[in-house]
Amino acid sequence: MLGHLLKPEYEELIAQKDWESLRVAFEDLHPADIAEVLDDLPPEDSGVIFRILPRDVAGVAFEYLPLDQQAELVKTLGSEQLVNVLNGMSPDDRTRLFEELPAEVTRRALSTLNPDELKAARQLLGYPEGTAGRFMTPEYLTLKPAMSAREAIEFIRANGRGRETLNVLYVTDEKGALLYDVRLPDVVMAPPETQVSDIPTRHMVALPATAMRADVIEAFEKYDRVALPVVDSKGMLLGIITVDDVLDVAEQEATEDIQKLGGMEALEAPYLEIGAISMLKKRGGWLAVLMVGEMLTTTAMSYFEAEIARAVVLALFIPLIISSGGNSGSQATSLIIRALALRELELKDWWRVAGRELRSGLSLGLLLAVIGFLRIVFWPSAEHLYGPHYVLVGLAVGSSLIGVVTFGALAGAMLPFILRRVGADPATASAPFVATLVDVTGLVIYFSMALLILRGTML
Amino acid sequence: MLGHLLKPEYEELIAQKDWESLRVAFEDLHPADIAEVLDDLPPEDSGVIFRILPRDVAGVAFEYLPLDQQAELVKTLGSEQLVNVLNGMSPDDRTRLFEELPAEVTRRALSTLNPDELKAARQLLGYPEGTAGRFMTPEYLTLKPAMSAREAIEFIRANGRGRETLNVLYVTDEKGALLYDVRLPDVVMAPPETQVSDIPTRHMVALPATAMRADVIEAFEKYDRVALPVVDSKGMLLGIITVDDVLDVAEQEATEDIQKLGGMEALEAPYLEIGAISMLKKRGGWLAVLMVGEMLTTTAMSYFEAEIARAVVLALFIPLIISSGGNSGSQATSLIIRALALRELELKDWWRVAGRELRSGLSLGLLLAVIGFLRIVFWPSAEHLYGPHYVLVGLAVGSSLIGVVTFGALAGAMLPFILRRVGADPATASAPFVATLVDVTGLVIYFSMALLILRGTML
Repeated sequence: MLGHLLKPEYEELIAQKDWESLRVAFEDLHPADIAEVLDDLPPEDSGVIFRILPRDVAGVAFEYLPLDQQAELVKTLGSEQLVNVLNGMSPDDRTRLFEELPAEVTRRALSTLNPDELKAARQLLGYPEGTAGRFMTPEYLTLKPAMSAREAIEFIRANGRGRETLNVLYVTDEKGALLYDVRLPDVVMAPPETQVSDIPTRHMVALPATAMRADVIEAFEKYDRVALPVVDSKGMLLGIITVDDVLDVAEQEATEDIQKLGGMEALEAPYLEIGAISMLKKRGGWLAVLMVGEMLTTTAMSYFEAEIARAVVLALFIPLIISSGGNSGSQATSLIIRALALRELELKDWWRVAGRELRSGLSLGLLLAVIGFLRIVFWPSAEHLYGPHYVLVGLAVGSSLIGVVTFGALAGAMLPFILRRVGADPATASAPFVATLVDVTGLVIYFSMALLILRGTML
Repeated sequence: MLGHLLKPEYEELIAQKDWESLRVAFEDLHPADIAEVLDDLPPEDSGVIFRILPRDVAGVAFEYLPLDQQAELVKTLGSEQLVNVLNGMSPDDRTRLFEELPAEVTRRALSTLNPDELKAARQLLGYPEGTAGRFMTPEYLTLKPAMSAREAIEFIRANGRGRETLNVLYVTDEKGALLYDVRLPDVVMAPPETQVSDIPTRHMVALPATAMRADVIEAFEKYDRVALPVVDSKGMLLGIITVDDVLDVAEQEATEDIQKLGGMEALEAPYLEIGAISMLKKRGGWLAVLMVGEMLTTTAMSYFEAEIARAVVLALFIPLIISSGGNSGSQATSLIIRALALRELELKDWWRVAGRELRSGLSLGLLLAVIGFLRIVFWPSAEHLYGPHYVLVGLAVGSSLIGVVTFGALAGAMLPFILRRVGADPATASAPFVATLVDVTGLVIYFSMALLILRGTML
C-alpha cells in the first residue's frame, strides 16, 4: 500500500525540514496512505505535514485517521487548517470528532474567526441548525474564583477589549468547567478585597450546546439575562449567547412561523430582497401540493352530483359552509402553533386541548348555525331563491355548520400536535392543510345532513 | 358659587393647621368650588389641602384647576396622591398635563412605585398603549460629565443597589437632559482619572416616549443594545427600556400577529389560562363577521344558478378554485404583514409590491392551471365524470385558476397596506378577509370564464 518511499525516508525528510521534497513525494500518494504515514508520527510532525498538503488531499487524508489521532492532530493545527479540515469531513464524522475535542480546542478555533467565518465554523463544528451551538460566540471573559474583586477589575481592564460582552463574567475552574457567572455591576459594587467566589451570584443557568432555538429564547425570557453561557455535556464552557442575538433569533422564528402558517416555505431573506425564482419555489411547491389535496373535494362532490342536479340550491351554500369550517380551523391552528412555539403547551396537553376545542367548536358552530339559519329563513325572497322547502334548507345548512365548525376546531388544534409528535415543525403548512381537510370533510357533512333532512322533499 | 366659608377663613384654618375642621368645611363644597379656593393659594398650601380631600373629590377638583396650576400642584404631591389624582382624570386631560410636567416629576412618581403600580402609573401617565413610555423603567443611574472614572465607579458602588441595569449609565446635564450613555465596561476599562465626558461612547440612540412598540423592537435589533434611554420631546431623560422586556414585547407582538392572522382577536393570556367565555368572544366575533361576509358567495352563486343547473359538473370545481385563490392570498398576506411588522416594507412600497405580486400571481396561477387542466383531461374516467366537453371544462377551470390565483396574490398583498393606510393594524383578520374576498371574486371569475368557454356547448 505504501508509495514510492519507505516510511523512514519520510521521517528523514521531515527531520531535514525538506518540505518541498516531501510535498512532491506525497503528490502521488493516496490519501489513505498519507494517513498511514501520519498515524505513526508524533502529532507535532503530522501537524507540519498537514500544512504542506494540498487542501483537498489534507481533508480526505484526515478522514482516514482514527478518531483519537484526529483529535490530537486538530490541537496542533492553525485555525485555517482546522476550518479546512473540518470542511472536508462528512457531517457525522465531524460531529463525532467534535464530541471528542476538548472545549479549549473548539474555543480556540472559534475565537480566531471573523463573523462570517465564525458562522461557517459553527456550522462545521457539527451543531445542528437552530441549536445553541450555532448562535454562541467565544468572545467572553473568564475569571478565577480565587481572584479578588480588585484583581478581577484589573484583569478586565487588561483583557476586556473586543469581547462581545463584559456585562457578565464567567467563573471557571482550572479545567475550564463553568462554575457560575457574576455580573460586572456586582464585581464593581463588591468591596475590592472580596473574593470572586464571594461575590453575590444568581441561580446559575447554562444552556447545553444542543439546546433548540425555542429553548434558548425561552431561557432568556424566563431568566431576564443579557447573556447565557453554553456548555458541553461535561459542563465545560464553550461560548456565550447574548440577548441581542436572541432577539434576532426570536424575530426570525416568529417570521418563519407566520410564513409557514401562510402556507409556504419560510423565506431566507426580507421580502424585497428575495429573488423571483426563489420566491416562486417557496410558494409554488405548497400551492401545488395543496391544490392536489383540494382535488379531493372534486372527488367528494362527484359522489353527490345527482343530489346537486336535483337540488341546485344546495350548491349555493358550499363556499359558505366550507369557508366557515376553514376559518374555525385556522383560528385553532394558529392558537395551538403559537402556544407550542412559546412552550405554553406540551405534547401531553393534547387531550386537554382536544376537550377544550370540542367545547369551543360546538359553541361557535351553534352561533354560526343560528346566524346561518336566520339568514336563510328570513331573507326577503327566501322562497323564491331557495324554493318551497327553504326552512328545511336552512336546517340542513345550520346543522352542517355545527358539524363543520366543530370538526374545523378539532382538526385545526390536533394537526400541530400530530406534526410535532412525528418530529415535524407544527407550523409547516398547518393552516392550509387543515383548510383542505375541512373542505373535504365539510362537503361530506353537508351533503349527508342534506340527505338526512331533505330526503322525501327535495332529494 | 363659594361655600359656607369665605376664602380668608379657609386660609385661617390652613394657617392653624386645623385639618379636621378644613376637611369638614370642604365636605359640602362642590369640587369646582374647592378648585376655586385652591387656585388662589400658594402651591404648598393647596398641596396640603389635597391630602385631606377624599380620593374622588380630589380627583375631580384637580380637573377644574388650570393646567399650569395642575402642574405646580403635582410637584408638591406625594406619589400616592399623584397616582390617585392622575387616576381620576380623563385620558386626554391627563396626557395634556403630562406633557406639561417636568421630566423630574414624572420620574419621581414612577420611581416610588412597585411593578404593578408602575404598570398602572405608566398607563395613567398618558402614554398610549404600546408606546415606549409604557415599557420604560425609572430604575437607572445617571452620571455627570465632569466626574472621573474613579468617581463614577465610587458613585455606582454607593448608588447602584436595586437598579434595573447598571450595564449602561446615562450622562445628563444639570437639567436632566440626556447627553449620551456610557457602558459600565468602558467605565471600568478607562484609566481612573479619565473624565466621564472622555470615556468612549457609541452613537447615541434614544427613543421618544411616544415611539411605537415596533420601533422599539427595531431599535434594539438594529443597535444591539442591552438598554435604551427614553426621552421626552425636549430631550429630558424619562426612563430606560431594557432588552429583556423588549424580548417579551417582541414575542407578544408576534403572538398577536399570528392570532390575528388566524382570524381572531388576540388573546391576553396563554391558551390554557384564558377563560371559556373570553375565548368564545375572541373567536366568535370574527367567525360571525366572516360568515356574514361569506354569505356574499351565496348571493354571487345565485346569479349563476341557471348555469349550475344546466352543467352540474361546474359545481364540482368550486371548492378547488376558491381554495386555490384563498391559499395564494394567504401566502401574500402573511408575507406582507410580517414584512410590514419588521419594517422591511413601508407604505410607499405598495406599488413595487403590487408589481411583484402581479408577476408572482400570474406565474403561480399558470402553474396551478397546468396541473388543474392535466388533472381533468387525463383523469381515467374524465369523459364519464365531466361529460363529452371535458377538455373545455379543463380549459375553463385552468383559465379561472390563473385569474383567481393572481387576484388572490394581489388582494392578499394590498389589503395589509390598505389597513395600515387607514390606521388599522394590518394583521387584523387580514387572511380570512382576503379569503372571503377571493371566494366571491373567484366564483365570478370562474362562472364568467365558464360562460365564455362553454357557451354553445354545455351552457
